[in-house]
Amino acid sequence: MTNRETRHRELAEHYLPDALLARMRERAAGYDRENRFFWEDLDDLRGRGYLTLFVPEEFGGPGLTLNQVSRLQQRLASAAPATALAVNMHLMCTGVVAAMFARGDRSLGYVFEEAMAGEIFAFGISEPANDWVLYGSHTVAEPQADGGYLLSGVKIFTSLSPVWTRLIVHGLDESDPDDPRVMFGFVERSHEDAAADGGPGITVSDRWDVLGMRASHSRATVLDRASVRPERVARRVPAGRTPDLLTFAIMGNFQLLIGSVYAGIARRALEVGANALRGRRSAQRGTSYAEVPESRIRLADAHLEFTAVPAQLDATTRDFDELEDLGAAWPLRFVSARLNAVTAARRCAESALLCSGGAGFSNDHEVSRLLRDATAGLFHPPSMDAARPMYAAALLDIDEEATADSA
Amino acid sequence: MTNRETRHRELAEHYLPDALLARMRERAAGYDRENRFFWEDLDDLRGRGYLTLFVPEEFGGPGLTLNQVSRLQQRLASAAPATALAVNMHLMCTGVVAAMFARGDRSLGYVFEEAMAGEIFAFGISEPANDWVLYGSHTVAEPQADGGYLLSGVKIFTSLSPVWTRLIVHGLDESDPDDPRVMFGFVERSHEDAAADGGPGITVSDRWDVLGMRASHSRATVLDRASVRPERVARRVPAGRTPDLLTFAIMGNFQLLIGSVYAGIARRALEVGANALRGRRSAQRGTSYAEVPESRIRLADAHLEFTAVPAQLDATTRDFDELEDLGAAWPLRFVSARLNAVTAARRCAESALLCSGGAGFSNDHEVSRLLRDATAGLFHPPSMDAARPMYAAALLDIDEEATADSA
Amino acid sequence: MTNRETRHRELAEHYLPDALLARMRERAAGYDRENRFFWEDLDDLRGRGYLTLFVPEEFGGPGLTLNQVSRLQQRLASAAPATALAVNMHLMCTGVVAAMFARGDRSLGYVFEEAMAGEIFAFGISEPANDWVLYGSHTVAEPQADGGYLLSGVKIFTSLSPVWTRLIVHGLDESDPDDPRVMFGFVERSHEDAAADGGPGITVSDRWDVLGMRASHSRATVLDRASVRPERVARRVPAGRTPDLLTFAIMGNFQLLIGSVYAGIARRALEVGANALRGRRSAQRGTSYAEVPESRIRLADAHLEFTAVPAQLDATTRDFDELEDLGAAWPLRFVSARLNAVTAARRCAESALLCSGGAGFSNDHEVSRLLRDATAGLFHPPSMDAARPMYAAALLDIDEEATADSA
Amino acid sequence: MTNRETRHRELAEHYLPDALLARMRERAAGYDRENRFFWEDLDDLRGRGYLTLFVPEEFGGPGLTLNQVSRLQQRLASAAPATALAVNMHLMCTGVVAAMFARGDRSLGYVFEEAMAGEIFAFGISEPANDWVLYGSHTVAEPQADGGYLLSGVKIFTSLSPVWTRLIVHGLDESDPDDPRVMFGFVERSHEDAAADGGPGITVSDRWDVLGMRASHSRATVLDRASVRPERVARRVPAGRTPDLLTFAIMGNFQLLIGSVYAGIARRALEVGANALRGRRSAQRGTSYAEVPESRIRLADAHLEFTAVPAQLDATTRDFDELEDLGAAWPLRFVSARLNAVTAARRCAESALLCSGGAGFSNDHEVSRLLRDATAGLFHPPSMDAARPMYAAALLDIDEEATADSA
Repeated sequence: MTNRETRHRELAEHYLPDALLARMRERAAGYDRENRFFWEDLDDLRGRGYLTLFVPEEFGGPGLTLNQVSRLQQRLASAAPATALAVNMHLMCTGVVAAMFARGDRSLGYVFEEAMAGEIFAFGISEPANDWVLYGSHTVAEPQADGGYLLSGVKIFTSLSPVWTRLIVHGLDESDPDDPRVMFGFVERSHEDAAADGGPGITVSDRWDVLGMRASHSRATVLDRASVRPERVARRVPAGRTPDLLTFAIMGNFQLLIGSVYAGIARRALEVGANALRGRRSAQRGTSYAEVPESRIRLADAHLEFTAVPAQLDATTRDFDELEDLGAAWPLRFVSARLNAVTAARRCAESALLCSGGAGFSNDHEVSRLLRDATAGLFHPPSMDAARPMYAAALLDIDEEATADSA
Repeated sequence: MTNRETRHRELAEHYLPDALLARMRERAAGYDRENRFFWEDLDDLRGRGYLTLFVPEEFGGPGLTLNQVSRLQQRLASAAPATALAVNMHLMCTGVVAAMFARGDRSLGYVFEEAMAGEIFAFGISEPANDWVLYGSHTVAEPQADGGYLLSGVKIFTSLSPVWTRLIVHGLDESDPDDPRVMFGFVERSHEDAAADGGPGITVSDRWDVLGMRASHSRATVLDRASVRPERVARRVPAGRTPDLLTFAIMGNFQLLIGSVYAGIARRALEVGANALRGRRSAQRGTSYAEVPESRIRLADAHLEFTAVPAQLDATTRDFDELEDLGAAWPLRFVSARLNAVTAARRCAESALLCSGGAGFSNDHEVSRLLRDATAGLFHPPSMDAARPMYAAALLDIDEEATADSA
Repeated sequence: MTNRETRHRELAEHYLPDALLARMRERAAGYDRENRFFWEDLDDLRGRGYLTLFVPEEFGGPGLTLNQVSRLQQRLASAAPATALAVNMHLMCTGVVAAMFARGDRSLGYVFEEAMAGEIFAFGISEPANDWVLYGSHTVAEPQADGGYLLSGVKIFTSLSPVWTRLIVHGLDESDPDDPRVMFGFVERSHEDAAADGGPGITVSDRWDVLGMRASHSRATVLDRASVRPERVARRVPAGRTPDLLTFAIMGNFQLLIGSVYAGIARRALEVGANALRGRRSAQRGTSYAEVPESRIRLADAHLEFTAVPAQLDATTRDFDELEDLGAAWPLRFVSARLNAVTAARRCAESALLCSGGAGFSNDHEVSRLLRDATAGLFHPPSMDAARPMYAAALLDIDEEATADSA
Repeated sequence: MTNRETRHRELAEHYLPDALLARMRERAAGYDRENRFFWEDLDDLRGRGYLTLFVPEEFGGPGLTLNQVSRLQQRLASAAPATALAVNMHLMCTGVVAAMFARGDRSLGYVFEEAMAGEIFAFGISEPANDWVLYGSHTVAEPQADGGYLLSGVKIFTSLSPVWTRLIVHGLDESDPDDPRVMFGFVERSHEDAAADGGPGITVSDRWDVLGMRASHSRATVLDRASVRPERVARRVPAGRTPDLLTFAIMGNFQLLIGSVYAGIARRALEVGANALRGRRSAQRGTSYAEVPESRIRLADAHLEFTAVPAQLDATTRDFDELEDLGAAWPLRFVSARLNAVTAARRCAESALLCSGGAGFSNDHEVSRLLRDATAGLFHPPSMDAARPMYAAALLDIDEEATADSA
């Protein structure tokens, strides 16, 4: 007997106690309305050690598994989706290194050290019109004599833009035209630079007025010969679909932790919908809407669909933590878990909206925010349409390897 | 040969020429961003006689049919959804009277006269928690000695709130406890009162920050002994599901014209999606996204679903105009046409969003606005869930009459 | 006022009175179980003049419109889907000629004469692996000195195979390699040959054991230099997507009449589902299932979806009858009407199955047959997938003409 | 590192080697066509010890977990769905006892002994119109002086009817009107009685002509004072929703193993669909259909949906095996896993049918059988509609316990 559930409950109480969640849920409304970054949430999470969840005990952290962090992120997202989505990026960077350690590659241990030292990691992979995602880049990476790089290009949807001090980036090094390489590494800046929306060779866009996940401040970042020091160059992978442990670890952490955020939104939407039904009264039926069959069934159908989502995340994170070898099936598993979570979040939010009546149409109603936050789920790579070729190829192109355009 | 299509094209060019539509589409972005009423659009429409479309020739109007107005509203909504939705309310009031005339009831001719004289009509039927909609009311209607009424209650989603001078309302007259009546009539106010958000016994809420259809300014209206003059009392119908020509005409005009607005949104969303695909380039495929099969099929599926929507509106408005006797099937036909239009609008807008990539997530992108405007479609009565009993009863409750809780 | 509905009711009583429908519904079970052709149904229909519905008055027929025949076919299919589907093929041939007459092409008047004289027409267009459908053919058409043709090839899903005496066919004439032509014409055989599954150059397959629509006996037909007399050559159209009145008329009649059959199945499935609910009792609830909310809503949702289907058929057949010029939108309209009808038939049949409980799983239960018959709807050209490119092209390929791979 | 996948592969090769699966797949077509019981499959499975999978090592069996048996059943169903569905019933009985042992209740050890001795167990729970399923019964259970029972009533869908020698049944003991009890126990008969469709107080219906899962011969069983010996009375549970380890174990095994069968059908349907595409050629495109985007995407979408199904089964069986305490969430988890598997099976089979073209419409094509077999999934309790109240209650009825009407 593993008592996994007991352990999940203990971790929830330790890192995300009910009172904290309640505070965060209240703040989420204000962040959304004022289009403000989640400063107070970040302080609280940092204060509780939430940013070190993945750091192994040997580096001074609690060494949680992806399965455990997935659960915590579901819980966090049920209160503050944008906070959870943004913090995800930092967690992911550390989770990637943890996954590499577990598979014998200890080369990026400095990420753990820096995370313990208070650095904040973010993700600079998405670029305009780059549907190669991890396997290519429009960012120019100029190799330097010392082994470092200067990067120039545009990164989009850079969550945590007002606070990150370490940005994992990739760029294309075409210095040897016969052997183009995608390099991965970390751009660094100080907390002061972050606060000033800048840094050496770094400009953060001030445009940010989006439909949902507003508190994440995932603004565009322009790199203009931004430096990656030699000791922060993580990989130089041949361009194209080249298998590599780093990209595998990114894909797994990215898809499953993003999926966890939307699973949390879905769960919260069901609660909000149920509360709304209990609080509304039907003049025709003379009962609360919680007794009206059409409303009950609306919510039941969303709940039934939702039930699969945490189970799929659970199965997939456990296999990942347990180092199962699923070969070419891994990307199919990762991406499906995330896409299904997003679909459930959108469906549950819509059901909750229908349960809320016209009141839910106001931008300041929680259900409206959940619906808007859930819509952001359509934009994480790979989109449903970008994922389709991968699922077709796995069945139809026997000689080709099933690969994923997924971060 | 009827050449209906030719006539539709002529009407489109006369009332909504391309240049006007283009101006309105541009303004729509500003109205949405600034949460502003569509003042300039209203001036343009008024100037072209758009507010008198339903007025018969004998009263000096063009006497268009519901089929023709439905087409115009689809066209208008493709440029300015909120404008179309709000103007709908005025058109509906005149359309209701036209439908009554066509069926031999000429009692409300003053509506035509007033519409010709520049009065603006709006709809004061929806109330908080009143799922009886037309068949009951939480508004207290006190009969006066002269045959008039004083009304007290709250009306919600009153489109055109800054400009209406005539509000069709209903209220419950329980002065004879053995014979409760739902009265319908018109509350009147001057253009000056409208401009001041007030009027005798009338207060218009200043709260309005909603997800979509923002320019409609469908704010709540509080009636506090607001007067309906004796000659503006239209009906005194026994409370409950009592068949009546007025409520039948409201139901038909409401469902079919609202449906027309969402059909227009759907059509525009398909165009916006197609334009977006043509304008984006896939790094992986080396082509525009208009050549990427997954994107093409995404849009094709939305287009295929959409195709049914104008056809259903066409069939139903023609039957309505031609005075077909569909008996208890009428409400099923009306409501289905509107719900399907809303579903198509939401689906097409979502498809267009997926075609637009991350750019579409910005609140100032047209596709984002279309998605938000389409979402408003979930809130017109009857909602999908409120409609379900009607479709069940028509099959299962043979002795009961299939009726609709629909405005 | 047109009183279209009154006229529809009169036609229904004249051609398909209730008593006849009841007999046919009973027979349908037997035909399905015994995999037998609908001989008795055909006799009854022929006796009532049902095979001459489209024949104009000047040729001695009643001259019904496509709109009227669509309604009759919906009614017939509600009792005997396979009978309706097969008779459709004969009706279509005459409907095609009627549509050509209405558009000024009187060249195929002999079809009316022969229909009046008792000949039975069928459709020999579908071929294995020919997704050009009307625009190409794997059948070799050898031109003869007298202007006639000899055809060799395989036609599949030839409904009415035991009785047809006139088969509309197409084949590819490559005698001039620079100008390949698709010829259309009629292969003729006697009633005696039909009864013997043969005829000159004609062999009818004896393999026929399919999931649904079994009574239609749509067996494969092998042509081996089967003759088309010169005066029965209808067209010689350049191969590829060449606009032509004959193929346009085939497309319209085919899609809309096939759609009508599935609309009839859908309607009947709703009735069967409702009857099943009324006849079953829930031990838990102590009521009939007609009172159980989950069942009611199941049926309501199917009913709501269904409601659009006859409306779309109505709008499209009326536009077709009234000679509206919809240009490149016609194929989109035709195909959407048929696909939606099939989808509704399948959904309604599934809902009815769920309403019927385990009893419905027996092959001899009407609901099981309806479900199986509805499944046949997936195979009429163009399939959903074959139709997708047409709906994509209409939005994305502005310079190309939107065309349909549809028969 | 657990190497679960390696162990799954070893078990697959041991119990269900490829050559055996191929033989079974071939036989499945014949069983279906001839409506014949799967005699040869049963012999093969028995010969390999497949009927003792759940028997613990201390009783001489291999002691597999539910997680492992679920995988094997998925594999078996991919070749022979009806065989898998029927054998499921036997496996389930032994799995129930294994689950009880794991939770400390060793009272039904005789089931293991008898399974080792060659007895075949089946499930006699479903009854006409009994939507209480496990929590009530229309079967009369007369208590006998010796502590045994005589049972009279009708059991439906009794899989394995030609071979079972032990039938787990329930009946209502109302001998004390103030304390009605649902008794569970085993009716016994000899192999000879089974072969003769009878036994003491037992009549097996000879009616069996159903849409799918035909080889399971799940015929109705009439009990007329059939005996349950005192030592084979397993439980006497108060009527109604009374928590009990036996019913919990039945629910878990039933839902998850039934779900496994449909997961296997889904997986096979994807393969069949892919093979069909590779084998068909498009005249228009000049390629195999495996290169046609619309077909690829059709299959991709089904594959994507399918991917969640084995993951959900995996997560849920592991939690069950690991004795996690999920409390009131258990029934929600069990039923969702099964319903999603059925939905995926139906969707994948439909997609495969569309990939197969008209050939798939013949009853002897594998894809037709898969579609028909998948349809049987609609009839296992609880149906989607019967499950809805449970998912609604869990959100809306806080004080009530979420319970399942599930076997």
